[in-house]
Amino acid sequence: MTGLEWIREAGLLATPVGLTSTHSVGVVRDALAAWEARQRGYDPDAWSLPVVGETWDGRLNDASGGHVGPQHVLDALAAAAAGPVPEGNVGGGTGMICHGFKGGIGTASRLVEDAHGRHTVGVLVQANHGSRAGFTVNGVPAGQLIGPDRVALPGRPSAAPGPDPRPGAGSIIGIVATDAPLLPHQCRRLAQRAVIGIARLGAVGEHYSGDFFLAFATGNDGIPGDHGPPPAPVVPLAMLPDTRITGLFRGVAEATEEAVLNALVAARTMTGRDGITAYQLPAGELAALLAARSAAPPSAPADAR
Amino acid sequence: MTGLEWIREAGLLATPVGLTSTHSVGVVRDALAAWEARQRGYDPDAWSLPVVGETWDGRLNDASGGHVGPQHVLDALAAAAAGPVPEGNVGGGTGMICHGFKGGIGTASRLVEDAHGRHTVGVLVQANHGSRAGFTVNGVPAGQLIGPDRVALPGRPSAAPGPDPRPGAGSIIGIVATDAPLLPHQCRRLAQRAVIGIARLGAVGEHYSGDFFLAFATGNDGIPGDHGPPPAPVVPLAMLPDTRITGLFRGVAEATEEAVLNALVAARTMTGRDGITAYQLPAGELAALLAARSAAPPSAPADAR
Amino acid sequence: MTGLEWIREAGLLATPVGLTSTHSVGVVRDALAAWEARQRGYDPDAWSLPVVGETWDGRLNDASGGHVGPQHVLDALAAAAAGPVPEGNVGGGTGMICHGFKGGIGTASRLVEDAHGRHTVGVLVQANHGSRAGFTVNGVPAGQLIGPDRVALPGRPSAAPGPDPRPGAGSIIGIVATDAPLLPHQCRRLAQRAVIGIARLGAVGEHYSGDFFLAFATGNDGIPGDHGPPPAPVVPLAMLPDTRITGLFRGVAEATEEAVLNALVAARTMTGRDGITAYQLPAGELAALLAARSAAPPSAPADAR
Amino acid sequence: MTGLEWIREAGLLATPVGLTSTHSVGVVRDALAAWEARQRGYDPDAWSLPVVGETWDGRLNDASGGHVGPQHVLDALAAAAAGPVPEGNVGGGTGMICHGFKGGIGTASRLVEDAHGRHTVGVLVQANHGSRAGFTVNGVPAGQLIGPDRVALPGRPSAAPGPDPRPGAGSIIGIVATDAPLLPHQCRRLAQRAVIGIARLGAVGEHYSGDFFLAFATGNDGIPGDHGPPPAPVVPLAMLPDTRITGLFRGVAEATEEAVLNALVAARTMTGRDGITAYQLPAGELAALLAARSAAPPSAPADAR
Repeated sequence: MTGLEWIREAGLLATPVGLTSTHSVGVVRDALAAWEARQRGYDPDAWSLPVVGETWDGRLNDASGGHVGPQHVLDALAAAAAGPVPEGNVGGGTGMICHGFKGGIGTASRLVEDAHGRHTVGVLVQANHGSRAGFTVNGVPAGQLIGPDRVALPGRPSAAPGPDPRPGAGSIIGIVATDAPLLPHQCRRLAQRAVIGIARLGAVGEHYSGDFFLAFATGNDGIPGDHGPPPAPVVPLAMLPDTRITGLFRGVAEATEEAVLNALVAARTMTGRDGITAYQLPAGELAALLAARSAAPPSAPADAR
Repeated sequence: MTGLEWIREAGLLATPVGLTSTHSVGVVRDALAAWEARQRGYDPDAWSLPVVGETWDGRLNDASGGHVGPQHVLDALAAAAAGPVPEGNVGGGTGMICHGFKGGIGTASRLVEDAHGRHTVGVLVQANHGSRAGFTVNGVPAGQLIGPDRVALPGRPSAAPGPDPRPGAGSIIGIVATDAPLLPHQCRRLAQRAVIGIARLGAVGEHYSGDFFLAFATGNDGIPGDHGPPPAPVVPLAMLPDTRITGLFRGVAEATEEAVLNALVAARTMTGRDGITAYQLPAGELAALLAARSAAPPSAPADAR
Repeated sequence: MTGLEWIREAGLLATPVGLTSTHSVGVVRDALAAWEARQRGYDPDAWSLPVVGETWDGRLNDASGGHVGPQHVLDALAAAAAGPVPEGNVGGGTGMICHGFKGGIGTASRLVEDAHGRHTVGVLVQANHGSRAGFTVNGVPAGQLIGPDRVALPGRPSAAPGPDPRPGAGSIIGIVATDAPLLPHQCRRLAQRAVIGIARLGAVGEHYSGDFFLAFATGNDGIPGDHGPPPAPVVPLAMLPDTRITGLFRGVAEATEEAVLNALVAARTMTGRDGITAYQLPAGELAALLAARSAAPPSAPADAR
Repeated sequence: MTGLEWIREAGLLATPVGLTSTHSVGVVRDALAAWEARQRGYDPDAWSLPVVGETWDGRLNDASGGHVGPQHVLDALAAAAAGPVPEGNVGGGTGMICHGFKGGIGTASRLVEDAHGRHTVGVLVQANHGSRAGFTVNGVPAGQLIGPDRVALPGRPSAAPGPDPRPGAGSIIGIVATDAPLLPHQCRRLAQRAVIGIARLGAVGEHYSGDFFLAFATGNDGIPGDHGPPPAPVVPLAMLPDTRITGLFRGVAEATEEAVLNALVAARTMTGRDGITAYQLPAGELAALLAARSAAPPSAPADAR
């Protein structure tokens, strides 16, 4: 992920965030920087350090083919809007494989309310991680029940063993956003909770990085950045006290779990390079598994105590 | 946790590790240092930076009462032996509360085997974290089914809302050990996977710290430390390649999950300061819940697809 | 240094800071925790994680002798007052050796002024680091000019080669404080600049740790901590913008440089365990060296250009 | 700097390192990835995460003009060879300004010898940092003596106040390389010592990042990476013991200091965008200043003691 070093220094996210394929990080990054330069008008002294994350789509995509260009970035920026976010085989999520199914982009959010007010926390993931065998939903070992047959390589037996076996393939990248007024070190704590949601779905961190979730907060929006008019001599800020932060932690865990599921449910079967096919999660089958589990009498023993 | 800064610098754990109550970290640390000095014989130039971790037991214990003394440390060192490790209400685990039940020390390990050999990874936790409401075992919401009535404060209604509500109370500390030959940065990755096991049981990281699990590897034991005879000019080491490390990651996640459960199962109901009582997990009740879930027909829908 | 993990999590320094000898960290830590507990009155749920740093004084001190007790901590807390801070052979600085001279505690501060206001930044060091050969003041190689004869071991030739050769001996610990309103990540940046001051005096980081300087800011004093009355739902804060922070960085570098020099100038020759003597810096000699250098015509070539 | 997250995970630098202008990081990164893909031959599963660092050249360069292209990267790779490294206005160093003079690329190395053998440590910097007022060489305040007139903006008074006042401008990036067998955590310690050399020349860290120096060691070259034939079940490594590492720390500090000076001495006056001119360091003037200082009698007082 580019741009992180400066965020660690300045505590400020000042650019759009791009998510793309591993070998296209550079073109997306430079396109974002150029776009920002144009937005500001001619200011030869103004620099930017855009944040661009990646996961590897080389199992389905001709990843070194240079198929992402600056225009894709401009189109994405032009299309950015409030409202529902497309999920599944879109953008950087196009070539993802997750828990041995077709993966992609997923997003979810939570309203976090307490006696003092309400904040939103949202998560967007580009899900490309996890083994089929480990895939678990609400305690149901769905990956094992559905079976290991969802990535097919022509000329090979029909099963690829879950995720791409190459190092780096099994990763997920995500962005956590909240409108709560958090300081940078609180944002870092938020990002750390995303792993809870991933773990609930049975990922074991085959290729996790502690840094692959970035959290930002808009509750102090308008802080003067590195360019533009000089800031006030002292900048007033607000901070959510840590006594109120656990709700956001829960929200991040839940929203991450849901975002990964949403990516799986929204993704569609795709045949990529060399005829390799990644099959989508059979959502009806998963729903039936979950319904069967819910129909079981788990509360009976509690009644009996 | 004391001693971490030096481990980050030197990449070497060279002392025993102590786990204790928050306000007794100091006495344990100094006692370990004094014990090491005696072990070495008179060497006035030899220092040590022992590693001592803590969780807060003030809900049950008179935590500021100074009840831990150097002799407890010496006794523990004298009693250290191979073989089964006492669990539950022992040592630093005596006053723990975990997921709203009596908590304590728990331990578990995994044999990790592949075509090239076999390694062991073990985890020991001092479990003092987690909410009752979130407690989940194999997908069964055991905390909600068993009910919120396991920490009783005299003169208050019988229910305390799960874990101690004070910041810092809800933490877990753990040590991961393996006989695989790992380098320091690989040990750090191992420690990071412990959170997976905790998350599977429904913890949301209310007070997690990214640093509260420390992993060490004995596969390169005998590296010259800061004292004693001079090391060889170049020290030969072995490294498990990362292509073989995912098994250890899985082992850490599983062993951490089991170690927390073992702590809960081994702990016994305890009445502490001011008549406060923490009740043990009703293991039979949990077993019945899990059996009922297993009896449900989760594989039926898969058969039907 | 104890207590750092919690500061990294919470962004808040809520305890006094103790500096002491390596093997006395524990007793100082526990004494600080007990003192805090008494300060708060009886609150069995209140915990603290005091910050205690250390450097090794085993060359002069019987470091494992257990000579520091809780009363020393209480005396220090009782004696804490505004005004000049004792320097040299005091407190944890008693047994220090720095650049091959008697070292100890030193402190210095800077007023940092710009168009918008004035802030103070102060540094206190416990200086136990550096080689004689490298010692340099304003570009004058004072260590080499004054000679390598200031730590004498009875029965050995009169010269010990500068600092204690044992790993861990050559370290410095310091605290940076400012009244500017800085956020936690800005404090971390402040602490990082202390190394500049140390480097100017010729230290090469033989045993530096990136973590051995801790910076805190009082400009947002009064933030609700982990105990006491509940905080406001949203806590108002102030932040010095980064456009004004470079002055503080310069101040930290200068004050650290001066604090180490002050420690050296204030320290007095001391004979410790086993007759080992650490000689003080001959301040007159150093002054003469600096005066001679100042009398040299360094600006002449500039006139000639 | 791109690619750092993976290095922190894997402990391995497996790609060439590129240094360029801030807004050209992307094109350089993607070109390196594409080059690597071609080197490996067709392997659609092989990914790379190249390391590319940057400093800001917008004072002299039309930084958003997109003037760096993939061919520049290919040319640089083709020209890479053993032997003297071009310094000054070359490559990413073309538009640098350092201590208010024309800056650029500089490099230096040290042979580090002890009783057991000899290792080399080298440093290459892209120097774009530091104020004129602070510039100091061997204790001589050269920046103040030479005067503040080396960056001229047409239509403004002839003096720009030292470095570019924009945040991010004042940075340096560097690569430390050694043939000693160091582990990843030892490489990190090496990189941390670079700041010593920068501090000796009077930089105060106006915009330092703790991450801007990356160190790698070739003493364990040939470790299997993420692609290619499977590694041995256990990889044999060598480790320089920490008892021998201080010499390398000194070497990094000295080589970094010299590398920055070499960048300044090698750089040539350049007129960039909008007629802005950065003047080279007048090397003769600096030499005269240093000679005058050396002729002063600094050792006299030592003789007199």
